[in-house]
Amino acid sequence: MNIVTGNKQFFKEVSAIKYEGPETDNPLAFRWYNAEQVVAGKPMKDWLRFACAYWHSFVGNGADPFGEPTHLYAWNTHTDPIARAKEKMDAAFEFITKMNIPFYCFHDVDVVDFTNDIAENEKRLFTIVEYAQQKQKDSGVKLLWGTANLFSHRKFMNGAATNPDFLVLTHAAAQVKAAIDATIALNGANYVFWGGREGYMSLLNTNMKREKEHLARFLHTAKDYARRNGFKGNFFVEPKPCEPTKHQYDYDSETVIGFLRQYDLLNDFKLNIEVNHATLAGHTFQHELQVAADAGVLGSMDANRGDYQNGWDTDQFPNNINEITEAMLVIMEAGGFQGGGINFDAKRRRNSTDNLDLFYAHIGGMDTFARALVVADKILNQSEYKKLRTQRYSSYDSGEGKLFEEGKLTLEDLRNYAANHGEPNVVSGKQEYFENIINRYI
Amino acid sequence: MNIVTGNKQFFKEVSAIKYEGPETDNPLAFRWYNAEQVVAGKPMKDWLRFACAYWHSFVGNGADPFGEPTHLYAWNTHTDPIARAKEKMDAAFEFITKMNIPFYCFHDVDVVDFTNDIAENEKRLFTIVEYAQQKQKDSGVKLLWGTANLFSHRKFMNGAATNPDFLVLTHAAAQVKAAIDATIALNGANYVFWGGREGYMSLLNTNMKREKEHLARFLHTAKDYARRNGFKGNFFVEPKPCEPTKHQYDYDSETVIGFLRQYDLLNDFKLNIEVNHATLAGHTFQHELQVAADAGVLGSMDANRGDYQNGWDTDQFPNNINEITEAMLVIMEAGGFQGGGINFDAKRRRNSTDNLDLFYAHIGGMDTFARALVVADKILNQSEYKKLRTQRYSSYDSGEGKLFEEGKLTLEDLRNYAANHGEPNVVSGKQEYFENIINRYI
Amino acid sequence: MNIVTGNKQFFKEVSAIKYEGPETDNPLAFRWYNAEQVVAGKPMKDWLRFACAYWHSFVGNGADPFGEPTHLYAWNTHTDPIARAKEKMDAAFEFITKMNIPFYCFHDVDVVDFTNDIAENEKRLFTIVEYAQQKQKDSGVKLLWGTANLFSHRKFMNGAATNPDFLVLTHAAAQVKAAIDATIALNGANYVFWGGREGYMSLLNTNMKREKEHLARFLHTAKDYARRNGFKGNFFVEPKPCEPTKHQYDYDSETVIGFLRQYDLLNDFKLNIEVNHATLAGHTFQHELQVAADAGVLGSMDANRGDYQNGWDTDQFPNNINEITEAMLVIMEAGGFQGGGINFDAKRRRNSTDNLDLFYAHIGGMDTFARALVVADKILNQSEYKKLRTQRYSSYDSGEGKLFEEGKLTLEDLRNYAANHGEPNVVSGKQEYFENIINRYI
Amino acid sequence: MNIVTGNKQFFKEVSAIKYEGPETDNPLAFRWYNAEQVVAGKPMKDWLRFACAYWHSFVGNGADPFGEPTHLYAWNTHTDPIARAKEKMDAAFEFITKMNIPFYCFHDVDVVDFTNDIAENEKRLFTIVEYAQQKQKDSGVKLLWGTANLFSHRKFMNGAATNPDFLVLTHAAAQVKAAIDATIALNGANYVFWGGREGYMSLLNTNMKREKEHLARFLHTAKDYARRNGFKGNFFVEPKPCEPTKHQYDYDSETVIGFLRQYDLLNDFKLNIEVNHATLAGHTFQHELQVAADAGVLGSMDANRGDYQNGWDTDQFPNNINEITEAMLVIMEAGGFQGGGINFDAKRRRNSTDNLDLFYAHIGGMDTFARALVVADKILNQSEYKKLRTQRYSSYDSGEGKLFEEGKLTLEDLRNYAANHGEPNVVSGKQEYFENIINRYI
Repeated sequence: MNIVTGNKQFFKEVSAIKYEGPETDNPLAFRWYNAEQVVAGKPMKDWLRFACAYWHSFVGNGADPFGEPTHLYAWNTHTDPIARAKEKMDAAFEFITKMNIPFYCFHDVDVVDFTNDIAENEKRLFTIVEYAQQKQKDSGVKLLWGTANLFSHRKFMNGAATNPDFLVLTHAAAQVKAAIDATIALNGANYVFWGGREGYMSLLNTNMKREKEHLARFLHTAKDYARRNGFKGNFFVEPKPCEPTKHQYDYDSETVIGFLRQYDLLNDFKLNIEVNHATLAGHTFQHELQVAADAGVLGSMDANRGDYQNGWDTDQFPNNINEITEAMLVIMEAGGFQGGGINFDAKRRRNSTDNLDLFYAHIGGMDTFARALVVADKILNQSEYKKLRTQRYSSYDSGEGKLFEEGKLTLEDLRNYAANHGEPNVVSGKQEYFENIINRYI
Repeated sequence: MNIVTGNKQFFKEVSAIKYEGPETDNPLAFRWYNAEQVVAGKPMKDWLRFACAYWHSFVGNGADPFGEPTHLYAWNTHTDPIARAKEKMDAAFEFITKMNIPFYCFHDVDVVDFTNDIAENEKRLFTIVEYAQQKQKDSGVKLLWGTANLFSHRKFMNGAATNPDFLVLTHAAAQVKAAIDATIALNGANYVFWGGREGYMSLLNTNMKREKEHLARFLHTAKDYARRNGFKGNFFVEPKPCEPTKHQYDYDSETVIGFLRQYDLLNDFKLNIEVNHATLAGHTFQHELQVAADAGVLGSMDANRGDYQNGWDTDQFPNNINEITEAMLVIMEAGGFQGGGINFDAKRRRNSTDNLDLFYAHIGGMDTFARALVVADKILNQSEYKKLRTQRYSSYDSGEGKLFEEGKLTLEDLRNYAANHGEPNVVSGKQEYFENIINRYI
Repeated sequence: MNIVTGNKQFFKEVSAIKYEGPETDNPLAFRWYNAEQVVAGKPMKDWLRFACAYWHSFVGNGADPFGEPTHLYAWNTHTDPIARAKEKMDAAFEFITKMNIPFYCFHDVDVVDFTNDIAENEKRLFTIVEYAQQKQKDSGVKLLWGTANLFSHRKFMNGAATNPDFLVLTHAAAQVKAAIDATIALNGANYVFWGGREGYMSLLNTNMKREKEHLARFLHTAKDYARRNGFKGNFFVEPKPCEPTKHQYDYDSETVIGFLRQYDLLNDFKLNIEVNHATLAGHTFQHELQVAADAGVLGSMDANRGDYQNGWDTDQFPNNINEITEAMLVIMEAGGFQGGGINFDAKRRRNSTDNLDLFYAHIGGMDTFARALVVADKILNQSEYKKLRTQRYSSYDSGEGKLFEEGKLTLEDLRNYAANHGEPNVVSGKQEYFENIINRYI
Repeated sequence: MNIVTGNKQFFKEVSAIKYEGPETDNPLAFRWYNAEQVVAGKPMKDWLRFACAYWHSFVGNGADPFGEPTHLYAWNTHTDPIARAKEKMDAAFEFITKMNIPFYCFHDVDVVDFTNDIAENEKRLFTIVEYAQQKQKDSGVKLLWGTANLFSHRKFMNGAATNPDFLVLTHAAAQVKAAIDATIALNGANYVFWGGREGYMSLLNTNMKREKEHLARFLHTAKDYARRNGFKGNFFVEPKPCEPTKHQYDYDSETVIGFLRQYDLLNDFKLNIEVNHATLAGHTFQHELQVAADAGVLGSMDANRGDYQNGWDTDQFPNNINEITEAMLVIMEAGGFQGGGINFDAKRRRNSTDNLDLFYAHIGGMDTFARALVVADKILNQSEYKKLRTQRYSSYDSGEGKLFEEGKLTLEDLRNYAANHGEPNVVSGKQEYFENIINRYI
């Protein structure tokens, strides 16, 4: 298969990125990511299920609140929107295949420009979906998930499914319907909801309860449509605490899970957890993953990193080996993702303006995860990490501790047990020892 | 009734604090809090239900992680623990009655020092409970809520109900049993759980799922005991995101509500929401209140303030009229607290070492709330605040919007509605106008 | 003078905003700002010296990192850049005069669109400067300060005066030269440097020392030019800790003052302090003002507010009466601004899309400051606030304390004084009492 | 030399910690720290100059604001303060020598309990100093720095050198005098000032300018005394932004350097930079180091880590290899510390209650730094890291760029250069590439 031949090449200076091992001098090689290498019974590629994010890599232009675009793309020259969309998709598949990334993800408006006419948008979207079908077939690249962008257009400034204006909600529904159709047509494994403006700018003018009920109703309606139309994949909700809203209803994993439970959506929806959204919510990434894993809804991940010294969504590429190793521990213990994978919802820096920077960024991110996978596997299978943690709870595995877990003891029973057994010993949590285990295998 | 006469007086320099109106020059007078003044159909005292926190006002000694105690109390001189406890209670009731505060709150170990012997602790506690019964009778002061301190003793360093060691959990149960008994004996209106160490220091050594299940089981067990023994009040859980833990399971209102729903505790438990815990969780206080109100669990409040420029639980007295007004808007629209009140979980600064400072601090806090109550009442009843907010959602009050709320429209219906009705108008959220309404009435 | 008659009106629905007193029902009236009312010996307008920010009010379009523009201006229709610029200026002066704001501020590219041709830009700028001269004359509105935008164009993505590429620095210099010329031509009272990208994105690729030396050299060069050309006003540097950079060299007041002292710029440069930049730097606004006041460089203020629950530069309009009162205390005790004033570097919310919202926003902000001025005046002149603070330090006003201040005591002297005078009394800082004084006068 | 023989042993379960290489299974061995291994021309021990902090390891007891002590030390049993102090010192030197740490650091009150009598304190201090002299001689362990604790005693609640009460200041001076004497007697390499309460709790009651002038005067006075008495070492100031104060005057590196420059202290004082204080101030650690290095005052380091998800001074042991590698890059490029070293101002967690935990904690921290040293050396000497950064600035190395640096160009010159040379090329900052270099060598 040669998806990137000929005059379509946008990244001519780079050929396919290969695994060359940790000692290589080649900055355009993988040092850790070796797709077929088996770790804990599965090839790396099946543990990691990397995806490329269409928006950051091929649409985002480097503009920020204080400055104009810096990334000027060679694939943005056509005036005809369809021709432009096709060239962008050529570039995307060229990059994705050169990087050996097995999946991609997109919003509707990433793959083709939308107008204010619903029928025209549907037509455009399906024209480019047809083009993508061929690309997928030629390259073997698959769609990890599709979604609709319900936050960029000005009509969504007060929310989409939570907009105080019903007409805006219906426009959101129109986009979701088409995006679900596109996801089905492209055999997408999952469909994602990121409610970027599903929240409030000011509580003063907001009926939060009613807005959240609308959101639940909207999700049910969309889910029912997708199921009726044969979609078998997962639905993901992506938590984020705020930005661009003052408060987003999908604040963090606990909040989303509570919402899904309250509105009877837990059977169909799982979580897509983003590193930097955890940071913004005041959590570690591993915490957010663990909460989802414990509830059986660890669906997928948006891989990136924020900045610990400010509170923005910088979406930088991940590079911290300690942080990612602790994340991979949670993911491996949970048995991997439920349907999803590791989507690089990450952008090169505004001032990283060379085409090569896009490669360096992804190589760095993929190698960080691959290395973390190898390290986490050793920690889980060669060290006493799991055993030590299990032992801490052994007093609940039998006897009165077990009876308590089974709900067979009253408060008086517990009080009497305490009185009979005297003051407990203080037992070290051995945190530093656990931390040393992590660093031992890095 | 003259509860504070004679040689027992610890605050001799102050007589009862009276309302003297906004123009008074007297720093030892209320300028806004006028207990019997009717606002929106109820006396101020019934809206606000102020409570004095035993721990900060009569136990906490001004020590911080970098320094020794600075508040040296005249009521801490007796060597006999019961005699010492009684003098502390004398001081407490003297202060509370001089301040005209209708309620108080305590942890078990606030009112009398505990040992490591469960039976002895129970005996001590009930000796002082008897003393308190007389104090309450003499003064008319009531118990807003009781609780057990399950975080100060070293045995709780890895948690109480979530401790990996079952024996520690049983000791927590013993304390809770006695504290519930004391609360019932004192006719306490509510019983509170603040899980100060119910969380983790490091996720690496923690089985979060099992710990949370233990917590749920523990709450059920305690609740069942209390109900069996005639307790009719509410149980409150107090959210806090962290500190002293790295992560506390009762992170914020949404997290606690999700937990209570998951474990079938929503019928008996409500929330006690603290200002500074909202700040630490990245929320506004009014947000946390609104979340609780929307779920029907706005039980009570711990009034204080943190510091926006750092991340500690400084527990300063509230003084920001804008913030408290927005909080009172939520509380008044919710119809007031469900069983609880406004407990000043606040401490004078470490370097506020005069007895008078305790009065200034409470006067400032009570006046801030009283003023906010008056202002919020005007906003709700004299301005267009409520009307404007309601109008924003009017498209859901009839027609297709209403059908959507009722679950009668499919995604296709919504899509077609959008296509038929064209692009929505952009509608201003008028945030600045809403904010001006607030300031107009302050 | 009738600057806003006829077909040029962009805000036809509003006539001039008048003072109507705190009791007015009119949302388009001032409730506190009464320009000629004398406070502490000066009319309000001379204490406050309000300025309108051209960029937020007439240029910024409501776009954010997640969405397109929402503010679509009637004055942006002309295709000819000069005609478009003139209509924008018509709108600006109409708004400013209707709001009774005595000053305005602008960046070069706010008043007219720039090209990539330096000579053409200079020509455009001076065409519109001429137009502004007539506007100023007709309206009486004055220029508080001018500046050059050295951050929006992509060439500045790695900094302007601190760019690693000398050629970029010279382009920054070209803009600064023209902006200084414009400021002089418009009789601007001050010239501002906000180094939005004068910092680094990553320390790894940065020679911080060399970049800061370039910045110092650049400021000297610009200052020398302005002085040679007759500019008598102040130069201001505006601190901000980060965003869009990872770290900005003008981090906070202390950092900027240290830089100005190190590079011998303190005689000509003062500070322009922004509320939200203080928040982002982890300081209170009043702290940043006090630091500047203590160094004699309290030049001017950018009035706005951020959000305490996130870390972005939201630039909302100020509305917190407690915070602004504490700021006005510092400003009044410092004797007012040195050359500057209160510039509303604030934008209505993205979803505040009505023309009226621009008025509400400014009315709310101006009234907050006017009220704070009145309150601060009372605190300073009617309460014991100043006296209490002064008394705390009285031990240094005479005797050995004074000798210490004068440098006449050795460490042995101090040690012996301590040994001779015994353990000090603990003296309350009375923070809550001070805070009650503030609220008493609000 | 056998410092830890006999019945004095407090850590009998551990013998000396040895280097066994990265592959070792022994949790009580160094995997990276090999004291005599030469890196970039110096043995590891001379680059790192590790020090043990007396307070956290042998004094701090695990108490936190919500709980009592958890670390109960075997060396705290004697009732006689001198006997108790000597046993504590026995324990300290046993641990330090077993860990192969070449230096230690202490506050006066760490090594012996103080009273309220100055002469008695001096006597006690010198009794234990004499004991330490023998310990140092026997073990070869040296004193990296001494200091006085001017924050724990209640008299310092409003500050020490910045206390509004002159008498308190003189007590601080008495302590500093004795601590300097002790440092000289123990041949301490440096003397540190950490102004834990040199700041304010509330700006309302504070004369910041006067307090800072007192601080400067105090530092001069202390420095003059030390120099007169033969002290040749460095004085260090340790920046921290706040906690326990609301604002500490030694906020961060820039602030301290500005203060030292303003008050003519830069010749004698350098900085002691703490990881977690950088975090609390909103900086990266490497930033704080670079600022100090650029000013020639990179004196020493307090090694620890905070928590990125909260704002407390948790003082955990460092374990992040990415963060510490970037720090070591700065330190190595600066040529190492000026007089100081790496002091583990870090404490095991409150619930790490085993003696072994103290070893694990230090082993983890020392290995992290040793590994980072090896990695940084490779980055600096084997990669293109330095070359790439230098090349970015080459336009200033000759021609007009150089003339600009030399101050020979006017603003007109710069403007004309820009006009003549046209629009600059956009040049990538290559941040991701730089980051990949770091990870390549980890």
